[in-house]
Amino acid sequence: MNINKNYQNISDSYLFSTIAKKVNEFASNNPDKKIIRLGIGDVTLPLCKVVVEALKKASEEMGIKETFHGYGPEQGYDFLKTKIQSYYKMHNVDLKLDEIFISDGAKSDLGNILDLFDVDNTVLVPDPVYPVYVDTNTMAGRKIIYIDANASNNFLPLPDKSVKADIIYLCSPNNPTGAVYNKEQLKLWVDYANENKSIILFDSAYECFITDENLPRSIYEIEGAKTCAIEFCSLSKMAGFTGTRCGYTVVPEDIVFDGVILNKMWLRRQTTKFNGVPYIVQKGAEAVFTPEGQKEIQENLNYYKENAKIISDTLTKHNIWHIGGKHSPYIWLKCPNNMTSWEFFDYLLNNMQIVGTPGSGFGKNGEGYFRLTSFGSRENTIEAMKRFDSFLK
Amino acid sequence: MNINKNYQNISDSYLFSTIAKKVNEFASNNPDKKIIRLGIGDVTLPLCKVVVEALKKASEEMGIKETFHGYGPEQGYDFLKTKIQSYYKMHNVDLKLDEIFISDGAKSDLGNILDLFDVDNTVLVPDPVYPVYVDTNTMAGRKIIYIDANASNNFLPLPDKSVKADIIYLCSPNNPTGAVYNKEQLKLWVDYANENKSIILFDSAYECFITDENLPRSIYEIEGAKTCAIEFCSLSKMAGFTGTRCGYTVVPEDIVFDGVILNKMWLRRQTTKFNGVPYIVQKGAEAVFTPEGQKEIQENLNYYKENAKIISDTLTKHNIWHIGGKHSPYIWLKCPNNMTSWEFFDYLLNNMQIVGTPGSGFGKNGEGYFRLTSFGSRENTIEAMKRFDSFLK
Repeated sequence: MNINKNYQNISDSYLFSTIAKKVNEFASNNPDKKIIRLGIGDVTLPLCKVVVEALKKASEEMGIKETFHGYGPEQGYDFLKTKIQSYYKMHNVDLKLDEIFISDGAKSDLGNILDLFDVDNTVLVPDPVYPVYVDTNTMAGRKIIYIDANASNNFLPLPDKSVKADIIYLCSPNNPTGAVYNKEQLKLWVDYANENKSIILFDSAYECFITDENLPRSIYEIEGAKTCAIEFCSLSKMAGFTGTRCGYTVVPEDIVFDGVILNKMWLRRQTTKFNGVPYIVQKGAEAVFTPEGQKEIQENLNYYKENAKIISDTLTKHNIWHIGGKHSPYIWLKCPNNMTSWEFFDYLLNNMQIVGTPGSGFGKNGEGYFRLTSFGSRENTIEAMKRFDSFLK
Repeated sequence: MNINKNYQNISDSYLFSTIAKKVNEFASNNPDKKIIRLGIGDVTLPLCKVVVEALKKASEEMGIKETFHGYGPEQGYDFLKTKIQSYYKMHNVDLKLDEIFISDGAKSDLGNILDLFDVDNTVLVPDPVYPVYVDTNTMAGRKIIYIDANASNNFLPLPDKSVKADIIYLCSPNNPTGAVYNKEQLKLWVDYANENKSIILFDSAYECFITDENLPRSIYEIEGAKTCAIEFCSLSKMAGFTGTRCGYTVVPEDIVFDGVILNKMWLRRQTTKFNGVPYIVQKGAEAVFTPEGQKEIQENLNYYKENAKIISDTLTKHNIWHIGGKHSPYIWLKCPNNMTSWEFFDYLLNNMQIVGTPGSGFGKNGEGYFRLTSFGSRENTIEAMKRFDSFLK
């Protein structure tokens, strides 16, 4: 048996293990100092009450013969798909039920979708980037090219017509930078994709952080997107589902390549290689989209957004260049005094006992930048910013 | 963008849609007749009490900040892996914790595992077969060869040393035939795989139906298997988790190809393309392996096995050749009077209003055979067999 040798080309990521090592070392040398973690990419607030109640009710149903649920549809139950259909409708996007596929999270489907594409395609990925886009394509042996996201384009790169790309990754609001494309910018990408017969894989996992009505929460708000874009979304950050696992993938019926309808290919892929998201979890997800659920999750989102504002205001006060934080849980800042990402990491840890994520871990254009997140507690976020104030004044 | 053209080589399966169509037609023409479905491949008994309680408790934990669980380890929580480790130990199989990966079901991982293997491998599949083995490899463009499972080998084919295969699928107890390999037979496969440097993908989703202590419930009961076999198991049939979604995949650390440890490759695959099974579901699964859980699931398994015995006894009485049903929920019978599979389907439906699954739907060697399952209710199973008695006497 021959193994898939492409795995040998994946670079090992030492980013988070190196962070853990440095933090542990500092902690054992300074047992009296309180370390505040603002590097965390996971939510910290619990599930909403209405979601917990739905999970419990569905669990009970599963224990009764008459209401027990065995195999469900691989693409998800209609009771959840109709809720997501209505959610899109709120932003003036019309989707057919068959275009919505319930997933166990955006990460899974961002990798799984690649099954539909030939190995012989060129992949375009922004730099800095969520490492999963690169690793999944490297595993499959695809050629990857990068497009620079940097201060000169506000970390929102636009298409270069001289570059030919078949599969394009866009993430807006962006991880790690928090930058958000406006409609005009996304329209340039959609037009590029339709002209070049490319496919856009649009990661909208952070759409719920957008509050400016003029900013697009879905790529389907852009004319022409339904013939060239697949959208991946998640309840992870929207409703604290990082450990509960539910998301959705939209594959419009109008995407056709070589006469083949991609929606039908994806349905065939999912019915063959997936057995659906647990009934219980889908019932919990359904509750997220009720009026009570939306109210509760909005309170949580506001909590994180207020944390982001506290961080952003402090950085502004100290003249530290940054983006994100407004329509995103991430704040992307330029390390002061031309420090490298890791120099700033050490500086923050040693002087203020704040842990963040070095930007260089997300690609070469991340060097000299740094990511803070708003997922910590309010108390810790305030305390961390007080330390900024007293150290930098 | 070029699509993956291998999808055009997957044959559409009309098996279950044709069954549904025929049954619906009969029902609308004969509204007074009660149809009994013994073709069903899904469990019908609800989840055990102890599992439901665990699901509810975990749901409550998720609603409290102090006990909330965000991202978990992609390969599963240790609390569940240790339980599975002990379960294997009961059958004298020692596994390291790092060799156990929690999955959302055997079907998913039987497909996902193929990521690790080069396209340029020959796949050996028994005929008749669970269609997923064939479809997932066709999608990836691998060459598939078949080995005959038929009455002359009791539907338990053994390796042919003149045939070179890289990836070998074995399923025991078998779907669809219910046939079970003994240790001597499995040893021949393990030896073949080690000699030929092949990998065995061992689907043990029905191991819990085995009651004969001499029959292997895991391929790791066979000496040498830990250098050549990956095992896929599921709580679907064991504990009624078809709609709850949890299973496990065992990748021993001693499987090495081209100097690469497959266990490490699989870990890399899972951490990149999967985000783990929901915490709530893993807590439910943990309860399955408690003494109370084992007692409760055994009652359910006994219920299904008694159904199987009722079917098998009736077939024996009428001199209908069949296998399975003893250590499996499936009964595989030879259609009487040399009927084809679909002729017998029509015969059963029209004369006795019993629905089963034509064997020809599982491959060419299934022609002339038929699958009945024990997942119906006791009442319906008895009623169906009474119809057999009165019609065939």
